[in-house]
Amino acid sequence: MNDILVLTRYFCLIVVDDYDKLLDKYNGKVSDLPVICSPLEVSGQIRYVITDIIGEEADLGVENLMGSGLIAGETARAYNDIFTLTLVVGRSVGIGAYLVRLGQRTIQKTRQSPIILTGYQALNKLMGRDIYTTNDQLGGPMIMFPNGVSHLLAETHFDAVVKGLEWLSYVPSIRGASLPMRQLNNSIDCIDRMVQFAPQKGVTYDPRLLLTGYKAARDESSWRGGFFDKNSFVETLSGWAKTVIVGRGRLGGIPMGVIVTENRTAETTKLADPADPTSQERLVQQAGGVWFPDSAYKTAQALRDFNREGLPCIIFANWRGFSGGQRDMFDEVLKFGSMIVDALVAYQQPLFVYIPPFAELRGGAWVVVDSTINAEVMEFYAAEDARGGVLEAAGAASIKFRDREIVETAHRIDPVLIQLDQLIKEAEKAGDNSQLEDLKIRIRQRERSLFGVYQQVAVHFADLHDTPGRMKAKGVIRKLVQWAESRKYFYWRLRRRLREFELFNALELKPSGVSANNTAENSTAQARKIFTADLYQWALSKGVTEEIWDDDHKVLLWLDNHVDELNSFVQSKKNQVHAKTITEKVRKLIQESSGEVSVLKIALASLSTEEKVMLQQALN
Amino acid sequence: MNDILVLTRYFCLIVVDDYDKLLDKYNGKVSDLPVICSPLEVSGQIRYVITDIIGEEADLGVENLMGSGLIAGETARAYNDIFTLTLVVGRSVGIGAYLVRLGQRTIQKTRQSPIILTGYQALNKLMGRDIYTTNDQLGGPMIMFPNGVSHLLAETHFDAVVKGLEWLSYVPSIRGASLPMRQLNNSIDCIDRMVQFAPQKGVTYDPRLLLTGYKAARDESSWRGGFFDKNSFVETLSGWAKTVIVGRGRLGGIPMGVIVTENRTAETTKLADPADPTSQERLVQQAGGVWFPDSAYKTAQALRDFNREGLPCIIFANWRGFSGGQRDMFDEVLKFGSMIVDALVAYQQPLFVYIPPFAELRGGAWVVVDSTINAEVMEFYAAEDARGGVLEAAGAASIKFRDREIVETAHRIDPVLIQLDQLIKEAEKAGDNSQLEDLKIRIRQRERSLFGVYQQVAVHFADLHDTPGRMKAKGVIRKLVQWAESRKYFYWRLRRRLREFELFNALELKPSGVSANNTAENSTAQARKIFTADLYQWALSKGVTEEIWDDDHKVLLWLDNHVDELNSFVQSKKNQVHAKTITEKVRKLIQESSGEVSVLKIALASLSTEEKVMLQQALN
Repeated sequence: MNDILVLTRYFCLIVVDDYDKLLDKYNGKVSDLPVICSPLEVSGQIRYVITDIIGEEADLGVENLMGSGLIAGETARAYNDIFTLTLVVGRSVGIGAYLVRLGQRTIQKTRQSPIILTGYQALNKLMGRDIYTTNDQLGGPMIMFPNGVSHLLAETHFDAVVKGLEWLSYVPSIRGASLPMRQLNNSIDCIDRMVQFAPQKGVTYDPRLLLTGYKAARDESSWRGGFFDKNSFVETLSGWAKTVIVGRGRLGGIPMGVIVTENRTAETTKLADPADPTSQERLVQQAGGVWFPDSAYKTAQALRDFNREGLPCIIFANWRGFSGGQRDMFDEVLKFGSMIVDALVAYQQPLFVYIPPFAELRGGAWVVVDSTINAEVMEFYAAEDARGGVLEAAGAASIKFRDREIVETAHRIDPVLIQLDQLIKEAEKAGDNSQLEDLKIRIRQRERSLFGVYQQVAVHFADLHDTPGRMKAKGVIRKLVQWAESRKYFYWRLRRRLREFELFNALELKPSGVSANNTAENSTAQARKIFTADLYQWALSKGVTEEIWDDDHKVLLWLDNHVDELNSFVQSKKNQVHAKTITEKVRKLIQESSGEVSVLKIALASLSTEEKVMLQQALN
Repeated sequence: MNDILVLTRYFCLIVVDDYDKLLDKYNGKVSDLPVICSPLEVSGQIRYVITDIIGEEADLGVENLMGSGLIAGETARAYNDIFTLTLVVGRSVGIGAYLVRLGQRTIQKTRQSPIILTGYQALNKLMGRDIYTTNDQLGGPMIMFPNGVSHLLAETHFDAVVKGLEWLSYVPSIRGASLPMRQLNNSIDCIDRMVQFAPQKGVTYDPRLLLTGYKAARDESSWRGGFFDKNSFVETLSGWAKTVIVGRGRLGGIPMGVIVTENRTAETTKLADPADPTSQERLVQQAGGVWFPDSAYKTAQALRDFNREGLPCIIFANWRGFSGGQRDMFDEVLKFGSMIVDALVAYQQPLFVYIPPFAELRGGAWVVVDSTINAEVMEFYAAEDARGGVLEAAGAASIKFRDREIVETAHRIDPVLIQLDQLIKEAEKAGDNSQLEDLKIRIRQRERSLFGVYQQVAVHFADLHDTPGRMKAKGVIRKLVQWAESRKYFYWRLRRRLREFELFNALELKPSGVSANNTAENSTAQARKIFTADLYQWALSKGVTEEIWDDDHKVLLWLDNHVDELNSFVQSKKNQVHAKTITEKVRKLIQESSGEVSVLKIALASLSTEEKVMLQQALN
């Protein structure tokens, strides 16, 4: 064996003549040679052992990996900077698969378009057995759609392109541009209509109907509208983590991201592993109204995507909490739940959280979507019959008002029991044991017949602490918005918020995002508040009333009628901000030049004569 | 049933007298009442039905959830802004558990300190069976350490505090401050020594020994040093994703984050789910030198933590690739692998990737750590006998040089085969069939005896394309650094990089981070390059030689000897930058004021008289 190894080593060597020829070809420059060699004496003759092969041309080696690294880094940055979307309409392998994921948004063709790291033959070779028979087993739609890598599937290449274009129609044409508003065709839908699909108490339903409405019969005229414009809702990631539904829709032509809780039990399949013969496919049930590790991740993922698309967002919240059983705790539900908070903190567009009728938001689930997480962009609303609190009413009642206390209360206020208690006292005095026994039985009977009612009253009493009325009184929601009115309300509210955000942007007061402890950025939040107050004062001086100011629709009309004045008001604010910045800069420069006029001279040297004259005048 | 419901509803009502009393108490202000009521006629009498209970004092309701949301958002921001670390030394429930995770770094006491969302009794009640018997089953160290929520475990409260303090000793005292250098005690360790633990070809080893060294015998004097200062390496997250090892160590007193590939097979346990009687505990084997979904996540997590701690980092890379089998593809390996790229793109401190001797980096694994991902901060190095490329040599050879080609080559160059081929030709001519048969047998025999050797030569030949020499020639690594010398080399290299980064920071040229497509930030990368070139020119003018400039140790000594001149050079650059900024600001202001001197006047009004005079002088 050793002989062979030595032999192997010796085979990659060059005789002196060949080496000299090679050297000649490269004008005697050793550093230019396509091989690196070291001399060795073999049987009294000099040979050159090749230690490295560089090659004369670029090859499929580390140089390719470097190029791949470059494009990987750029794709990761691109996801943050622009709209990235990959149509997978053929095999994507290795770095190709990574680029798909680094750009996040993915539409995968269902046939012959696997997203894989290693081909199935290579894996079979590696494992020494024929485990896989196709690449689709590794990265086909049956793998990549249920695990949330592919956001949408498409039957054909053309279908993929159509879906990609449709997606683009929800996104601003360039980063930071206005949203692509679509004129609402009044023959199809309008803003002023009611939302006609209405959830019922205690009845589960397909939560997509909140958004889309439904047809009561076969004909179009039987359509009962939902929250979004007719036919505008497009769901994504529907194969993954089905206890939450995410997608994009239009509200009066304005694109929005949307997240809705599934209230029905969902099923998820854990595949058997072909490489492990002992493994079995498992079907896992996931309760409705509960966040699991996968659906928490999906929620965060959707928020990240929407945010980078520049979309406003509405969350229809109906969560009882996070799944806290052993399996989900072990499966890192805390990590993925935390991602929701991280994603909300980073959100830069108007974001509404809204609890629909008969929906509830409890404990930890409330905490991760509360509007104080990012008060600059978030607003919290509830519909009539929505509920929110730490515990569900039944749970709160069972802790705060235990069985013994229920019985005591009955004895305190039920006229029959009061009377029986009185009789028992008298019987005790009289020593009438047989009547005593009889009374005791009658008391037990009465207690039993009352217990259920009293318990329900207790639950009802607890429930009255969880109402939208209390939420409003405590300031945790901005407003109770009737479900039927919600489309109209949020349309005008959204338009107003977008208008406000435009003004903030004009003043370079962008939401502070992830890093708000920073002084500079805290002052951004502060500056927005001050500007908003100033704007109100200005509007008052121009004749707006409080009533108009508080009505999103009216205030928008009023602003449209005062657009020139508004622009000049904003311009003057802008100038003030600039003036302040420049004063600070000048002052800093003067301080740092510590009396050296020369530095300032450099600063001002490149100004034109007119500019200098203006500055002169301003100084005098 | 309906009767009872009606009854229930009627129980929460108030008679007129009580309502009036209540109203009196609140001075007749309905909006101040602790209940919201609506009047109802019951048997001809007015009653007030309570629809919402506000309560007189703040209660444990939505107002608490709002407070929890506020602290959740602030904790998420705090992780980005400062050093966050939670010592879990008691029960952390619900939002408490979320705050632990939102602050990421966690030290958990092993006893009576579960991190849970819901108590085990409440879960049992919910499920209707006694599934769990302790909270530790849900969030104790047996759950939270193997899943990577807890970074460290501590036996006692005191132990947790000690570990927390130790962690703090690796982190700058305030955000953005210099690293806490610890003077290296020469009696314990020194910089100039060699690294004495050396990996052997084809032998697996505990990769921690690369960092720590080892004791050859029992006594201290037998210690053979590793890369880091003696006893300075502290591993974190060791319970989770064992195919990668992460932690912090010191190099000549400078704290660094470190990530090392495990080259041995690791085992991970998937717990049985107590809530699912059909589930079983599963032991999953994970190969060494391969990234799995969990270890990719752990790698990204460590990078994020180090980055926010302001630590430089070194990755000892030894990955053959990502696990691309069905199970891991389904378990979202693409998502977690992509997180590594995202984390590297965001890295702001000096970061080295180094392939140790006999380690290899292939295909996708190379791509996600290539230095071009974030060229502003990353540098790539390889040790002697390191290997890198798209495929492993055996794989490349088997594709590029198939069995048939091996045999053809043998016939082309083996003298014995050449002779036999000649003889066969002659035998064919002569029509000597018996000799022909004999020759064919001899040829087969010769082919068989040569095949293995030729194959090895082919593999060796392929391997010569994957050497550090080729990496350097193609510019994918900055340098080949001998393993024994690596400690010394990287110490000086790190000090130099830190010095450079200090200068960049002084000029407000921070690494651009996640969003580099942005023009302003691209110009930061550009500005760093220009400054670095200017600095070199300046140094040349001050008498530095190219030889000194290329030697990290010498150049640092030289800079120390020219510190005053350096400072004034940097100050002048700083002034230039300021000058440029102010010029732009002034120009923008002048443009926006469109000839209106008044705006400029506001800008300059708050300058002091002296400041104005200076500005005047600079203008003239």
